[in-house]
Amino acid sequence: MPSMSLNFEPLDEANLSADISRQIRGMLAAGALCSGNKLPSTRTLARELQVSRGTVVTALETLIAEGFLESRTGSGTFVANGCRFERESVPKTKLREFVLNVIKPDTDATFDGALNFQACRPSLEAFPKMAWRRAAADAASRLPSADYGDPQGELELRIAVASYLCRARGLDVNPGQIIVTNGALHAMHLLAGVYLQSGDEVVFEDPGYPLARQTFATSGATIVPVPVDQHGLIVDYLPPHGHSVKCIYVTPSHQFPTGERLSLTRRHQLIRWAQKYNAIIVEDDYDGEFRYDVAPLPPMAAMTSDGSILYCGTFSKTLFPSLRLGFAAGPEALIRAMTQYRALADYQTNSQMQLTLANFINSGQFEKHIYRMRRIYAHKREILGDAIRASNMRGKLTGTDSGLNALVQLDTDLSATNIADRARLSDVCVSSIARYAVSPRVKDSSLILGYAALSEANIIEGVNRISNAVTRAAQ
Amino acid sequence: MPSMSLNFEPLDEANLSADISRQIRGMLAAGALCSGNKLPSTRTLARELQVSRGTVVTALETLIAEGFLESRTGSGTFVANGCRFERESVPKTKLREFVLNVIKPDTDATFDGALNFQACRPSLEAFPKMAWRRAAADAASRLPSADYGDPQGELELRIAVASYLCRARGLDVNPGQIIVTNGALHAMHLLAGVYLQSGDEVVFEDPGYPLARQTFATSGATIVPVPVDQHGLIVDYLPPHGHSVKCIYVTPSHQFPTGERLSLTRRHQLIRWAQKYNAIIVEDDYDGEFRYDVAPLPPMAAMTSDGSILYCGTFSKTLFPSLRLGFAAGPEALIRAMTQYRALADYQTNSQMQLTLANFINSGQFEKHIYRMRRIYAHKREILGDAIRASNMRGKLTGTDSGLNALVQLDTDLSATNIADRARLSDVCVSSIARYAVSPRVKDSSLILGYAALSEANIIEGVNRISNAVTRAAQ
Repeated sequence: MPSMSLNFEPLDEANLSADISRQIRGMLAAGALCSGNKLPSTRTLARELQVSRGTVVTALETLIAEGFLESRTGSGTFVANGCRFERESVPKTKLREFVLNVIKPDTDATFDGALNFQACRPSLEAFPKMAWRRAAADAASRLPSADYGDPQGELELRIAVASYLCRARGLDVNPGQIIVTNGALHAMHLLAGVYLQSGDEVVFEDPGYPLARQTFATSGATIVPVPVDQHGLIVDYLPPHGHSVKCIYVTPSHQFPTGERLSLTRRHQLIRWAQKYNAIIVEDDYDGEFRYDVAPLPPMAAMTSDGSILYCGTFSKTLFPSLRLGFAAGPEALIRAMTQYRALADYQTNSQMQLTLANFINSGQFEKHIYRMRRIYAHKREILGDAIRASNMRGKLTGTDSGLNALVQLDTDLSATNIADRARLSDVCVSSIARYAVSPRVKDSSLILGYAALSEANIIEGVNRISNAVTRAAQ
Repeated sequence: MPSMSLNFEPLDEANLSADISRQIRGMLAAGALCSGNKLPSTRTLARELQVSRGTVVTALETLIAEGFLESRTGSGTFVANGCRFERESVPKTKLREFVLNVIKPDTDATFDGALNFQACRPSLEAFPKMAWRRAAADAASRLPSADYGDPQGELELRIAVASYLCRARGLDVNPGQIIVTNGALHAMHLLAGVYLQSGDEVVFEDPGYPLARQTFATSGATIVPVPVDQHGLIVDYLPPHGHSVKCIYVTPSHQFPTGERLSLTRRHQLIRWAQKYNAIIVEDDYDGEFRYDVAPLPPMAAMTSDGSILYCGTFSKTLFPSLRLGFAAGPEALIRAMTQYRALADYQTNSQMQLTLANFINSGQFEKHIYRMRRIYAHKREILGDAIRASNMRGKLTGTDSGLNALVQLDTDLSATNIADRARLSDVCVSSIARYAVSPRVKDSSLILGYAALSEANIIEGVNRISNAVTRAAQ
């Protein structure tokens, strides 16, 4: 039986043998190696990988011990028979239609180049790793326990969040009005679970945040897209009869993805409208911490205390996305219901991460980090503006008052989607506004630039390549 | 204005001032202190708490900086006006009916005495804290990143789980057939989300696991309770026409809460029945790792490869509950759909905890820990048996072949619920089987004893107090 030729990535010099095992496991998972396949000899592998034969042997022995490979005396090493990686048949019963129709996988999730202008990616260059680890070690020393934690969230974290919201956002909520969630999206999932039924309407910004829109849609709600302009959601375009509207999703601090702020006048109008029709306003304040040179507006949740607003926040942007920690603050009866529903979904958020975050906030490090990042992001924003002005892109940069993303309105009749596709060919990941839109009213003429995670040099390089894509598209 | 008298718990000697702040925050959250309340003077507090006045001042200054308290010159320290803890009004729109009707909060969740026989509590006495922290530190050194992780779960953890399932449970699945969840319940929540619609039927063991039953019920499914006996679910009692049954929930390794195993014959019958009606079997293997003196039966998922079984596991019992890590293994199309739905719920499980667990499994520490705990639990089971035989309880101990819980069938006509209530008066937390039952057919004559987390002395003391409760009830 002929042996397979394997394609390895460059090895991790510090852990040669472990990295070889890891990469072979990846090949098994990806289906590049299947049950019964013969591996190259240890001698061949050692030569190809330029490592000692002993290193290869150690790697293969690990995989044999794990049951992935088996050694057949005199014949070589094979993928174990137990190690099936072929696909199974589809379950015989039908999955719910929305899984097949509504949910669209994010095609950009796998991009891992350096010129990645995807929205909402924070920079980790100045992340206080040591302080975070101290907070984590302190939390770990108090665990584990035989008991579950509170499905509403560890009281310590809810107190820290309430106190932070009061200091930083002028929001006056008590810990009983807060539920700790696995990110802001999770709050919408829980809200939909306790509150929305098939046929209910949800008003949604257009363009807007696709995952949140799909979260509401999977609950069976009908999405009512309402356009936005330079002052945020155009309140005059709300449906004239709002009796079926249960929920209005807005991003008032920094409209996603246009980056505009909802004006004070519209905020008041929107609250009145919601009150008239008994609807809940979902205020997604996903990156409101990062304001640069504008006077802060308080969250809408601070403008009314009638229980009509569910304020959602996340630590994905202020800390990092895979942390999966966020919260919702709102009327206690709603928070209680969401907590009960949540106890039947995944019971609670991991206690160790919650206590780590509580320590981190209470130590003052969290706000220090935000303060530091605000300066770094403000500087990158300048670099981005300069690069765009210096380029041939002829675009207008907007939405830069706050947040991690900006918008370039192209001064041509070219399709932004087409330009994003061309940019991708030169290893730049950038999205057209069309990607976030529902209605064809939204003109495919702007690019969304998430600039926060890129180095200054990469911002300049990325903008130049996008500019070249614009030039080529115009030819 | 008179000052409040505050009730403190014994202080943490290592962090006096921080603990004083912490306890006052707790009083604020619990409503024991309200906006405008005056605190005792620092002199009084220092005397009552037997600490230096400086310590108290530091604690209050922290709370003032956090905005919870305010100092009024010449008058003393008060709870800040911003610090409202009164309840808000209920939102004006109706929450879904099931929140009010179906979900029952667990009244025992707050019991924190030592004689806690609640089911499914693992012992942490031999938890390898150092090894866990090493695994965590290694995971932390690879994070954070600007990107989200894989909603299906980190590949590294899925490979580790697949490999563990193969070694320990004889289950042959590949990482593509696994989704990492926040505990086993979460897998059922995701299954319900992609698969169940209002009016679908779910066959459920009676007595059975209440949270899972409620999870299915909140999706609008109708629960069809089917009784269990000493061989597990009585398959002959399945509905004669199963066309509406989409799902059958079973705990074959250790029926919850009776502790019996589903016999081999019934496993085959159940699989055939599910195949006939195109239903998915949800196999909840919540504590199958802990087998004592019986030959292992493989999971049902290892008995068929036709894609009719979703195998759910959790690390809540093998490690600790607030970890919130579990997984489901099943046909790829179903796992893919659950992953897509999950991306709209909370996107992914925290990456740091996933990588920590992957490290812990790959280092061999996980299986070492299970092995160690199996011996510890087996010994505690002996102690429990001896204590019950030595007591006046006249009960028959069953369900002890495996797992963390056992069942005592009382040899009297007394109500087990009544005995559990009496035991509670002497600070013992124990449940009647009736708490887990739907149908009145289930006789209220057995107690469920979760013995794993108790010390030997507490097992004996607890059994004695329960025995006294039985004696008093009989009088």
